Order: sequence, then structure tokens, then C-alpha cells
Amino acid sequence: MISDGSPLPSASGLAWLDASGERPDIVLSTRLRLARNVQGHAFGGRARVNDRAAVLEKVRDAAGRAPLLQGVSVVEISALPRRQARLLMERRLASRELLGSSDGDSRTGAAVVLSPDRPLSVMVNEEDHLRLQTIYSGLNLREAWNLVDSLDEEMGRELPLAYHPEFGFLTSCPTNVGTGLRASVLLHLPALVLTKEIGKVLQGLSQVGLTFRGLHGEGSEVVGNFFQLSNQTTLGRTEEDLVDHLERMVRQVIHYELQAREVLLRDAAAETEDKIWRAYGLLRYARSVSFDELMNLLSGVRLGVGLKLLPGLRVYPLNKIMVFTQPAHLEEVAGRGLSTAEADVHRATYVRRILANEGVVGTESGPGDSSPAADD
Amino acid sequence: MISDGSPLPSASGLAWLDASGERPDIVLSTRLRLARNVQGHAFGGRARVNDRAAVLEKVRDAAGRAPLLQGVSVVEISALPRRQARLLMERRLASRELLGSSDGDSRTGAAVVLSPDRPLSVMVNEEDHLRLQTIYSGLNLREAWNLVDSLDEEMGRELPLAYHPEFGFLTSCPTNVGTGLRASVLLHLPALVLTKEIGKVLQGLSQVGLTFRGLHGEGSEVVGNFFQLSNQTTLGRTEEDLVDHLERMVRQVIHYELQAREVLLRDAAAETEDKIWRAYGLLRYARSVSFDELMNLLSGVRLGVGLKLLPGLRVYPLNKIMVFTQPAHLEEVAGRGLSTAEADVHRATYVRRILANEGVVGTESGPGDSSPAADD
Repeated sequence: MISDGSPLPSASGLAWLDASGERPDIVLSTRLRLARNVQGHAFGGRARVNDRAAVLEKVRDAAGRAPLLQGVSVVEISALPRRQARLLMERRLASRELLGSSDGDSRTGAAVVLSPDRPLSVMVNEEDHLRLQTIYSGLNLREAWNLVDSLDEEMGRELPLAYHPEFGFLTSCPTNVGTGLRASVLLHLPALVLTKEIGKVLQGLSQVGLTFRGLHGEGSEVVGNFFQLSNQTTLGRTEEDLVDHLERMVRQVIHYELQAREVLLRDAAAETEDKIWRAYGLLRYARSVSFDELMNLLSGVRLGVGLKLLPGLRVYPLNKIMVFTQPAHLEEVAGRGLSTAEADVHRATYVRRILANEGVVGTESGPGDSSPAADD
Repeated sequence: MISDGSPLPSASGLAWLDASGERPDIVLSTRLRLARNVQGHAFGGRARVNDRAAVLEKVRDAAGRAPLLQGVSVVEISALPRRQARLLMERRLASRELLGSSDGDSRTGAAVVLSPDRPLSVMVNEEDHLRLQTIYSGLNLREAWNLVDSLDEEMGRELPLAYHPEFGFLTSCPTNVGTGLRASVLLHLPALVLTKEIGKVLQGLSQVGLTFRGLHGEGSEVVGNFFQLSNQTTLGRTEEDLVDHLERMVRQVIHYELQAREVLLRDAAAETEDKIWRAYGLLRYARSVSFDELMNLLSGVRLGVGLKLLPGLRVYPLNKIMVFTQPAHLEEVAGRGLSTAEADVHRATYVRRILANEGVVGTESGPGDSSPAADD
């Protein structure tokens, strides 16, 4: 059963926010995608309207038969109000490319298949015909791989996927040929940034075939000290090898980050604590905040949670703030378009509400509190 | 009765903090002083050790007889631990000049006469033999003048004051000759600063014989948007004229400040509100704060109280914070010397404690709150 879902199910695809999985204070999410194409249709930029329409129909049929995709919605971008399409992008389920140009001229056949109960989705007619995707909370490469691999098998049974015995899966861009796999882990590395060790770490990772990007993938800037670490090559190694390699490297980076946090607490405890509490104070009371500033302040607060300096505050609301304070999400709640200045005000309001509901224990105490009580 | 007071009475001379008097959100305090000298002794820099010792003895005797000075402490700077002397300065009862060089080499006869129950004090052997002083909270020039004038009469009955029939009271510096009066009003003018109108206002005041200084009088910088406005001339007009003129001008400046606040609320409400709440958030949570940053943040919060944007917060604790977070006050509470970094931490702790005890109503609401409630 497929529901031909429009409008977008309101909380779709947000399970990766729930701060479950391993080490969720440092690892925001684990994302895997497989690039696949359907035989008999031109790929990517060479695909005509006919190709794209036909691919979407084939995917729709296949989804109707694949057990993992029971109950999914097939959401066509062109049928979606623009703001709803932007919601998908802000939830990392659709790419900017899939959404097409901002004047609403989206491509024929561009769609997202959304699972109602599994962290699974498929972008249809993006750079490749199919992008099978899964996003898990925390570090969860094994489970993520198993799920997307199962979906790949099911789709492979239902659709004639373009495959070359020597090269592997064929893709629109040569960098994806082979496994078509990109495995990414979104890491929060504030201590490596503060101790200025991050450059060395990233350089080391590039030497072992890994690359990093910002929050929203390719071409996006690093904000809030979030680094998306992923495999650079997809050819010549098995998927399991790629995933295992990434996992080992991620664990190494987590280890470096934890070491850097110890250095901060040892060499700059007062400054670090002050920075964290100031970030919290601004988030708690500011009346207007840009998304970039928010991300920087959240980074400080998230570090505080990791260092157990903000007891009572959980990671989940911090994750939630990151997603729900993006422009389309704010507009969705407001029920109208928002200017940048308005969005800044709505963003600050949302953050205050969320943080006010979170207990922060011992906000009045700190290392300076050894002084006798101030009289009042 | 005079108690030969050492150590310093702990809460002496702080009545001007209590946010009573007129318009205490804008006018921190009203301060009047009369410069007087005793006949038969060299003035100021020409006064020898003998002169200064003799002057102090004469003042002590006179104080024993003057009704307004019953129960006072005569605190000799040389007999006071250095930190206690700095407390006097931080409370605006003693000048840096009176305290002498920082290596503790204070001048013979330098003393402060402190009233236990009236806002009265006398600096002895500062630039002049006597500086009769009163500080009131808020705008209170009339009452302040009556009090210091009464003290002047009493002292004039007990001591042969240097007076010239043509010029009036003789002083060490020619700018004080005549009435010897300096009347100062400490004004908080953040809106005139934010709207950049302050330059024009100060220029206008200088054209009508008024001058401005920072928090700690001559040579001190303006911090936290506090301007100390006072008469420039002391000669050729009666004391009543000088005081009336200053009062009229102060009322005019208050009017300009209130107008500027209306402009802020009209043209930059969101920015102003954000600025105020951010200042509050930082004061509420920072773990380390320098005195200059504190003054700037307090300025924002004080403006918020004036604009009724921080309901529940009173002016009194803000005044108190300004005095009790100065270095000597922090050291006094800590019971030891503090490095600058330590003082910054103790300062932040003190501020958090005071603000945590003050209810701030409606901290989660604001103009952006018209958006539907964020789900949690």
C-alpha cells in the first residue's frame, strides 16, 4: 500500500533527532545513501522528461511490492507547496538539487518516497534515478547499513538496476560508481576547534580516503562546529569495508574530541565554562537570533551538556532546535512567510520555549561560588 | 561623640544606592560637595605635615561640637588597611587623591569623617582642607543642598574658614573659589547614546556652564552610559542659583533621554528588546565578567527596567551590583586579595546570586510570541 502523500506527513523523517544511538552528544546522526539507476533510461542531466516520468512510475510500482516500503508516501515535489518541499530539505530528506530552482520550476518526476515508520526514504530523479537513504540518530553505522542494504536488495528484485560486472553500480557521476555508497556521520567537534587541533585531524582523515562537509552535505559550510565525515571513494572496496573503515575513523575522531575536551577542562576550565553558560544565557533570553548565531550558541551549549556542566539539559531538545528553527519550519509554524528579521524573532521565541521547558539544575552555582554568600 | 572608627563601618555611606528619590532609574545619585579651608594653614600642595595634622585635629574638635556630626567616625587613611581605604573610594566617599599613592604612602592627616545615619561625609586634607560631601539617591538636589549647607554653617561656626569678602571661599584650586560648590548628578543615558544624540546634548550643556565626567569624577571615563553632570563654575553666582540651574538642566536632559527612549521603542523596538534581554541573559549566566563589561550589560538591563521590559526587576539591586562588584568590595567578601581573573569570576558569581533572587516576570514571552506554541 502506498499513500500518494500530499501534503507532507508532519513529523516525517525526524527519528534521527531523538538522540538515541551511540554517543549522541558528539554524533548527531549517521546517514547512508545508495545511488542507483534504472536500466533503459538516460541518467542524470541526460534524462528527458519521458525518462524521469517513467522512472517515477517504475519506482512507485516497485515500492508497492517492496516489503520495507509498505505504507510509504510518494511525495512529488511539483505537487508540494514550496514551503513543504523546503521542509523536506531542512529534514535532510531531499536535496536542493531535487527541489529544483527556487521559482518553483521543479523537474518532472522529482519525488521523495517516505516511510511512515522506518528511517528510510528514497529520492527519485535527483542526480541519480534513485537515492536510497537512511538516517539514524547517534553513531549507528551497522544498523543503518543493514537497513539500506535490505532496501537495496528489495529494489533490485523489483527494478532492473544499471550494474556493470566490472565497475559495479553505474551512476550519473563517476565518483559514485561502484558501490554507490556514501556513508556520513555528522560529528560535533567543538573542543577540536577550540584547541585548534581540528585542521590536523581533518588532514589526517583526507589521507585515509575520508572527506568532510557541513551540515547540509556537499558545498555546505561548517556551522556550529558540525562536521559531516564521509567516505570519498565508492569503488574497489565492498560496502562493508567502507562502512567499517568509516566507523573506525569516527571512533578515532571521537577519541580525539574527548581528549581535546579534557585539555579544555584542564587548561581553560574557567573560560570554557564561561563560554558555555554565556551561550546558554543568550539562547535563554535573546529576542532575535540568526540561524548561524544560533548554531554557534547551540554548539557551546551542546559542549556543556557533553562536559556535564549543564546538568538537566538533554541532547534531544538541542537536536530539535537545530531542525525546527530553520526558515521553512518556522514559517510552517507561523502559517505564513517570514522575512529574515521576523524569522530571527520567531527562532529566538522557539528556542526560549524549548529551553524553558528543560530543567537546568544548579544554574546559580559554579566554581566561583566558593566565595561567601553575597548579602542581600 | 566621635568614635575613632577603624575598621570602617561595613555598610557606611551606601544610602545613595537605595533607589529612592526622584527618577532613580535614570538618576543614580545626586552629590554635592563644598570645598573649604581653615585659616592659618597652607592649602593643598603647600600644606606641610604640621598643617595637615593641625587641620585634622581642628576638624576632629569641630566635629565633636557640630550637631550634624554627632556619632561620626573619623577614619584616618593611614590607619586603615589598604583594602578598606579602597572600599571608601569605591563608595565615592574618598578620592584617589585622598588615598595617596598605591604603595600605602598616604598623607599625614588624610581622613574621612563618616556619619552613621546621615548621607554626610567630610574628606579632610584632600585638595582642600575640607570637602563637605553629601550623596543622595535619585534626583534630590534641594534636600542635598539643604543638608550640606547646614553642615557648612555648623562647621563655619566651629572653624575659622578661609573666606574673602569679594571672592568668597578660598580654595586650593582657583576653579573652586567662590562658593566652593560642586553639585553633580549621575545620569544613566543609554537611549541618548544609542540614538547618537548624546554628543549634541553634552555640547549644549557645556554652553550653559555645565560639564560631564565619568562615574568616579574628574578624569574617569564614561562607562555603562553613566554621565556625571555638574556645574563648571563656582564663582559669581549663589549656591542656590547653581543648584537651581543644574536641576533645570538635569530635568531637560531627563526629558531628552525619555524622548530618545520613545524613539528607540518606535524605530528599533525589536533590536532594543533583544539587546536588553541578551544583557540580562549574560548577567544571569556568565561565569566571568570584567567590570567594564558588567557596566555595559547593567546599562542594558537598567534601560530594560526603565522601559518596563523586565518586569519584577528593581533598580536597587542594579545599583548595589555596581558598587559591590568593584575590586575592593569583592576582595572584602572573599577575605583575600584577588587576581583580575579571580575577581572576574567572583563578580559574575555575585551578579548571578543577586539576579537569581530578583523575580523577572514573563521571561519567556516577547513580541515574537504571537506564533503558535512550539510543540514539545
